[in-house]
Amino acid sequence: MSTGIALLGCGIIGSSVADMLLHEAPRLKARTGQTLILRHVVEKDIPKAKAAGIPARLITDNFDAALADPDTHIVIELIGGLEPARTLVLRALKAGKHVVTANKYLIAVHGREILAAAKKAQRCIMFEASCGGTIPIILALTKGLLANDITRVIGIVNGTCNYILTQMTQHGQSYADALAGAQAAGFAERDPTFDVNGTDSAHKIAVLSALAFGMEIPFGKVERTGIDTLSDLDLKFAKELGYTCKLLAIGEKSDSAGLSLRVHPTFVPNDQMLASVSGSFNAISVYGHASGQTLYYGRGAGGKPTASAVLADVIDIALGTAPLLFSQLPLLTKRPPAKFLPSSQIVSRNYLRATALDVPGVMAQITRILGEEHISISAVVQHESKAGHPVPVVVMTHEAQDGHITKAIKKINALKQITAPTVRIRVLT
Amino acid sequence: MSTGIALLGCGIIGSSVADMLLHEAPRLKARTGQTLILRHVVEKDIPKAKAAGIPARLITDNFDAALADPDTHIVIELIGGLEPARTLVLRALKAGKHVVTANKYLIAVHGREILAAAKKAQRCIMFEASCGGTIPIILALTKGLLANDITRVIGIVNGTCNYILTQMTQHGQSYADALAGAQAAGFAERDPTFDVNGTDSAHKIAVLSALAFGMEIPFGKVERTGIDTLSDLDLKFAKELGYTCKLLAIGEKSDSAGLSLRVHPTFVPNDQMLASVSGSFNAISVYGHASGQTLYYGRGAGGKPTASAVLADVIDIALGTAPLLFSQLPLLTKRPPAKFLPSSQIVSRNYLRATALDVPGVMAQITRILGEEHISISAVVQHESKAGHPVPVVVMTHEAQDGHITKAIKKINALKQITAPTVRIRVLT
Repeated sequence: MSTGIALLGCGIIGSSVADMLLHEAPRLKARTGQTLILRHVVEKDIPKAKAAGIPARLITDNFDAALADPDTHIVIELIGGLEPARTLVLRALKAGKHVVTANKYLIAVHGREILAAAKKAQRCIMFEASCGGTIPIILALTKGLLANDITRVIGIVNGTCNYILTQMTQHGQSYADALAGAQAAGFAERDPTFDVNGTDSAHKIAVLSALAFGMEIPFGKVERTGIDTLSDLDLKFAKELGYTCKLLAIGEKSDSAGLSLRVHPTFVPNDQMLASVSGSFNAISVYGHASGQTLYYGRGAGGKPTASAVLADVIDIALGTAPLLFSQLPLLTKRPPAKFLPSSQIVSRNYLRATALDVPGVMAQITRILGEEHISISAVVQHESKAGHPVPVVVMTHEAQDGHITKAIKKINALKQITAPTVRIRVLT
Repeated sequence: MSTGIALLGCGIIGSSVADMLLHEAPRLKARTGQTLILRHVVEKDIPKAKAAGIPARLITDNFDAALADPDTHIVIELIGGLEPARTLVLRALKAGKHVVTANKYLIAVHGREILAAAKKAQRCIMFEASCGGTIPIILALTKGLLANDITRVIGIVNGTCNYILTQMTQHGQSYADALAGAQAAGFAERDPTFDVNGTDSAHKIAVLSALAFGMEIPFGKVERTGIDTLSDLDLKFAKELGYTCKLLAIGEKSDSAGLSLRVHPTFVPNDQMLASVSGSFNAISVYGHASGQTLYYGRGAGGKPTASAVLADVIDIALGTAPLLFSQLPLLTKRPPAKFLPSSQIVSRNYLRATALDVPGVMAQITRILGEEHISISAVVQHESKAGHPVPVVVMTHEAQDGHITKAIKKINALKQITAPTVRIRVLT
């Protein structure tokens, strides 16, 4: 038996998926036993689809026709964005088609509705390609680590940001230069806002956390700080102190079962694997109560790498294993709503950089304030400079509650010797 | 419906599996929808099973009774070694039970026979825990990367060796001291032969390569060099040159579809992820034609981490997804025999360390010999020393065929100024 496929969207990922389905069918058949047939490529921009090498007979701008075809078993949604993607996915499920999507935005925001619709239609929706590109991270969460109580998911899930940070760290570039370089190299969009301000990473950690913790995650609960306000000075201090600055997407479950979901630049100790993830690569660390730390690494974007994940889902459906899993796993479709830890209670180590006039007594005042807020210090760095000029005073703290850190920073900034707002970056432990 | 389990062997892994089945059933049920019931723990050493906290009513030394129980659906084999494990696994399959095993030795040597027996019995055999401990690497190969033509699998798959090499590299210990330390820390067996001579890694790369390349791998085809002959001098040179020495298990497919399977100490460039894998952790890099490089990292041994992998398989069977996959995937049960690349044709970069009397002309002779064998040089290191004493002369080569390297080493060793056999270690590219 063969499996018929309708592909929505013929951009970079779509054309790679089409290319593999059209030209690698014999190899896929030998490996998987499945005959996968591309029946429709639905694309409004028909010349674009033709330019991508799709045979004209497969190209249509009519989704209804692709859906009406009884031999279309799977709809692959690669349009991106919320609408019309959401409507088309819901219609596909209602029409009895399985759905594969790479759309993290859609799953992060409308996942609950879409998974319920799939369950109701007795079909499945698969979204391996939505997080971490080629990395089989959804598979790890829904199968490989299924016996675990998962306590943390920590990912470098945005290749654009990681490329920019790598350029800044390894080549001393400024943020603006690194961003321009990323755009020139094709690693950043012309409008990179969603990437650099942490929104894209937030989508992904929302999707991953729902599966890791088995809870419904309202997307708005993810706190976000991007890399767009980072100073290269802080990256230099990171290097000096034995850390690498990464944009991390973090999902944590505390003992009281309250979650903390956040995206922010983070100092990663250089002996941790995540510190070694360079350029446009992605990596996700998952901590299970039995497994301990595991980590998954690979290309987070690009046509062929993402097509690898899309086709893994397609094959899983063709084999019948994905629908069987989907119909049975409470983790996917019976998730209780999550409780959240108030952000003032998040506990982490911190890097604080105050900017102070180099006059006697500043360090004493800063350390006094930290003491008052029960924050203990693990290291201090202040380099020599001309007296009377503003200098960076760096303090590394031991673990402390966010509420205390916020208060301490407010007090430090109120000191008359402080000439600029104090920078705070969390440190991974 | 519930799934009944018989566990064979109550060592470190077995008791962790039993512990989770006995004490975490409600959490597992909530997450997976499955009721997993431990019905029998088959262990010859009954006091040992009792000491592990297994309720007496579950303990038996009678495998036949466990097998005769119609409510035993899955047999977990955690005895290890070839016999009686092989016989018991075959009997379990014949009796209509699914089998889960962590036994790499068994799968590497008798995999073909056992997979065929499972296919014949219309049952499945799962072995996630056999390679890389907790790491869901079999899952990645049989599901996550299924659309790929896989060209390379490169793993740090023996935690004992990696722990020893990390101690030697980071703390300058000798091999003997590092081994003794590993034994004291519980990271090495009292008889570590199979670990340090590369046999254990060879078992694992044989299992992984069969799945990666979809071919039958006779275990004897894996070439092996262990870490037991490594000198700390070479680890120091590795550090100086920007590499970290790791015991790698490598499966490579060349364009002509000839495989090369081997285990040997390897210089890994420090900017590669595998260089950052420290201590007893394992990691496996898999290269697919679409995915590019992916990497999977986690604990390669230990009770709970390995139990995580064993239970992932158990749940996969309970859900019905594993038997469905197993019955359909040609990759698992219809593999053609592998063709192998003659070892003289393996291409790699190399580290060569000659030991030469420090007299004029030695370097000229060595470089002349390499030139004659078409081996081009990327770097040379010779430190200052007292004239007339033997000194290490290190040459890093560009890519060269093994046949040429072997000939060159023979010629170098024949030089009258050479006082000890030349050391050769491959360099990862």
